[in-house]
Amino acid sequence: MKEWSRKVYLKLPRPCEEDHRSMQKRLLAALRDCGSFYTDKEADIRIRPLVLSECLAICEQADWQVTASLGFDGRIWELLALEPGDTTAQHYGLCADLGSTTIVMELVDLNTGETFASESVFNPQIAYGDDILTRIFYTKDHPERRRELQEVTARGFRMLIEKLLEKTGVDARQCNILTVAGNTTMMHFLLGLDAFGVFQSPYAVQTLEPEVCRGAELGIPVQGFVYLCPAMENYLGGDIISGMLATGIPDREEISVFLDVGTNGELVVGNQEFLLAGAGAAGPALEGGSVRTGMRAENGAVDRVITEHGRLKVHVIGETEAKGICGSGIVDLLAELYLNGWIDLRGRFQVAENQMEKEDGGKQFRIPGLRKCQKVDAASENDVEYAIEYAPGLCFYQSDIDEFIRTKAAAMTMVEYMMNLIGLTMEDVGRFYVAGAFGTHIDKESAVTIGMYPDIDRDKIISPGNTSLQGARKLLLDRGLREKAEENIERMQYVQFGAVEEFLEIMRAAQAIPHTDLQRFPTVERRLLERQKKIEKNS
Amino acid sequence: MKEWSRKVYLKLPRPCEEDHRSMQKRLLAALRDCGSFYTDKEADIRIRPLVLSECLAICEQADWQVTASLGFDGRIWELLALEPGDTTAQHYGLCADLGSTTIVMELVDLNTGETFASESVFNPQIAYGDDILTRIFYTKDHPERRRELQEVTARGFRMLIEKLLEKTGVDARQCNILTVAGNTTMMHFLLGLDAFGVFQSPYAVQTLEPEVCRGAELGIPVQGFVYLCPAMENYLGGDIISGMLATGIPDREEISVFLDVGTNGELVVGNQEFLLAGAGAAGPALEGGSVRTGMRAENGAVDRVITEHGRLKVHVIGETEAKGICGSGIVDLLAELYLNGWIDLRGRFQVAENQMEKEDGGKQFRIPGLRKCQKVDAASENDVEYAIEYAPGLCFYQSDIDEFIRTKAAAMTMVEYMMNLIGLTMEDVGRFYVAGAFGTHIDKESAVTIGMYPDIDRDKIISPGNTSLQGARKLLLDRGLREKAEENIERMQYVQFGAVEEFLEIMRAAQAIPHTDLQRFPTVERRLLERQKKIEKNS
Repeated sequence: MKEWSRKVYLKLPRPCEEDHRSMQKRLLAALRDCGSFYTDKEADIRIRPLVLSECLAICEQADWQVTASLGFDGRIWELLALEPGDTTAQHYGLCADLGSTTIVMELVDLNTGETFASESVFNPQIAYGDDILTRIFYTKDHPERRRELQEVTARGFRMLIEKLLEKTGVDARQCNILTVAGNTTMMHFLLGLDAFGVFQSPYAVQTLEPEVCRGAELGIPVQGFVYLCPAMENYLGGDIISGMLATGIPDREEISVFLDVGTNGELVVGNQEFLLAGAGAAGPALEGGSVRTGMRAENGAVDRVITEHGRLKVHVIGETEAKGICGSGIVDLLAELYLNGWIDLRGRFQVAENQMEKEDGGKQFRIPGLRKCQKVDAASENDVEYAIEYAPGLCFYQSDIDEFIRTKAAAMTMVEYMMNLIGLTMEDVGRFYVAGAFGTHIDKESAVTIGMYPDIDRDKIISPGNTSLQGARKLLLDRGLREKAEENIERMQYVQFGAVEEFLEIMRAAQAIPHTDLQRFPTVERRLLERQKKIEKNS
Repeated sequence: MKEWSRKVYLKLPRPCEEDHRSMQKRLLAALRDCGSFYTDKEADIRIRPLVLSECLAICEQADWQVTASLGFDGRIWELLALEPGDTTAQHYGLCADLGSTTIVMELVDLNTGETFASESVFNPQIAYGDDILTRIFYTKDHPERRRELQEVTARGFRMLIEKLLEKTGVDARQCNILTVAGNTTMMHFLLGLDAFGVFQSPYAVQTLEPEVCRGAELGIPVQGFVYLCPAMENYLGGDIISGMLATGIPDREEISVFLDVGTNGELVVGNQEFLLAGAGAAGPALEGGSVRTGMRAENGAVDRVITEHGRLKVHVIGETEAKGICGSGIVDLLAELYLNGWIDLRGRFQVAENQMEKEDGGKQFRIPGLRKCQKVDAASENDVEYAIEYAPGLCFYQSDIDEFIRTKAAAMTMVEYMMNLIGLTMEDVGRFYVAGAFGTHIDKESAVTIGMYPDIDRDKIISPGNTSLQGARKLLLDRGLREKAEENIERMQYVQFGAVEEFLEIMRAAQAIPHTDLQRFPTVERRLLERQKKIEKNS
């Protein structure tokens, strides 16, 4: 295992008549003597004047028994600090997932490999736009705004370092290394680069494999270096490459599907023999973004929906009054609507089939909470749509359902299209990863019910959590994985999801709950029947 | 020849559907393609985010025809700037001699190797003490004062860069490289290091071969790197090592003596087979430092003395009123005093031999300008010494003469002692270099007369000027000479001029004008006789 950071306790010989080597020579000789850590090439250790200037006083204060802190700059080692006495027991590193919404950072004990503490903050870039494109347009043709976004991003890291200090008492500024994984736009923002190429033809970005740089260059107050996980393409960023390291997909015989849905949907299918990757507009709908009452999975969000005594019952994050609904809530909601027979395969509210005569001879909806409302973009008063009031004053509209189905269909179509390309079916898949917070919070059963996950053995469906962060942690602990990451990038074949007829055909078939071909979802068919029986029994 | 700095004109392919490589890849590929300049290892080129962030706008502005400016960081190349169009014709580098009194800087055209302009400033450190020791004591145990001296030293470089801009219109801030040669203390001050070890036992300094560093690290506004010529020992600094490169002494069959007298005296004797080096207190006396009316070779300094019609006649720098006397003036003065018979071999004023009876029966000095004065540290009124008034109101005292003779004896003793060590005499010497401003200004004949230079063929006595600067220029033009410099350091054997009996014996013999053994100076003996004849003829 190759490290990014080393701490070495040195008992330096005191200068005397017979040994009046310079401080630099004395230190370098002691570092080289301290063992097998360094290959010949790596025995080249840089000591910058600023660090050298502190050494004498520290040595004299500490009776020439000191701890050297070294960082690897991507090519050679550098002495970053000298500390009095033996401080090798305190040896930490940092890793981070730089998401467009959240930045998560871990303080890792490099002696044990254990995560010592973790913190997260909202990405301060949000002030410049909720979605990435708004931020990119803000910086377009304004170099000083690019610097502003860079500064703001660095501020997020500074906040995290402060929070970690408060929580643990460990000053992360003394870390010799921070590894970061994030998508290509985030990489560009952190480095102060023009990110416009990420989204605009011909999609030539500024970098995909940036230099290891100093924390100071980026305004991140670690004494050592910052390494960004490399990206493969504009839409296949370091977060996905990091995810490959985290899951080990490229190293196994078993075939895996790796799906990361967020602002975009990124997909990898592969094993030790092949790696296909692609990205497409899986869209923010899945995270509640383009849903009228959609919101992030935070306090006030409905995150669970079940049916109890023929009525919907919701759970709200933070046990407060509901303010909206997040991704996992939507998936549950659609599953329940479908299983209850309140929406059909196409997602249409089954109003006619679900009404009963009132005593006065009028008709009444048998779907609790069903409302008839004006459309958002209604041209006239008669331009109405149905909606379900899932929580007091909060409705999920027919148009929301349609949008969500389109989006989940797009995501699943990418998977199917890619499998078709190499003649695979879902039966060949050993593991189906759904990365990110989305995968973590969603109820597997509901997701299968609405056809967002394939109807396969549930044990094969894995929600690995933040694989971007996990990969960054692996990179932190073993810089040898850099080559692995680069190798994976080399191996990956990018699949373009064009508007080809086959793709559109698959997508049309997938635009249903769970799918136009219900036979592909045998367990859903079974559940549907069971639920119908139960409903009939109760009514 | 290996360069420190390169400028390369690139016609970059414009990004398109078929070629949407990242800017970084595009640049690196173009740089690698541009030829045989780089060995495999050197093909590794760093592009820092800050530089990368500017590239797109420059490429678009310049129709993708740009000039890349690269600097060598000591290990690999780095892209330091991109400029629109073809600017390869403007390619400059800087070299400097960092002296304790003066900093000299040259702007060198790296396309032709010619010096384009040269400037000098007094070293701003002078404000902290005329002599180096005062400056070192000022910083002792005060790290913030060390930073102050560092800052002040960098200011000297900034002043020079500004002066060069004013003079030439070339902005030296765009230079990718500055090479500097200076003694070990100057090296320490420039790098902000504790210089106390230079002068205090056990003479362990902080560095002798510092890292190549960025201009920005040192507060020197060049966009590239700063390389300091390595030193051999605390008293044998980068200025001497640079001097070896300038003179080529270590590469010739012929044996050379290299003497650099300034605050200290440094000496190298050698050829392609051996290199002996030593340093000793040659002392500031030679430059007029410890002489009562001594001063630097600047406006108002007496720099030439001759005898005309039995009287001393002086030349003053700047043709102004005399304010003091500098090294070359002192050497002339002593030579004239000696040749006129006004001082003897031991440097004593020949008062008794040079007085005549006045008309009233009293006695009168026959030495024009001879005065009897109180000593500086006189214990009583009778504690007097003779002095010669060499210019109106300015005297050169017996004690000045004694001090000067001691110092020049010390310098010459170093040479003789070192020659004796390896069984050489002055007849074996092919070239006798006297480096620095001192050697340039001094009259060879006068110097031989007073025994400061050996009495050898005058063509063998060479005043090469500022060899420290010349070596820095050579290093600027060919970074391959770094290895040469390090090799010379490896080859050099340091000779300790201890208080051994042999050394003291040689020194006692040398404490005379020109030497107690006049036979060693046959041409001086001849001149003395000629002068005496002339004087007798005139009187």
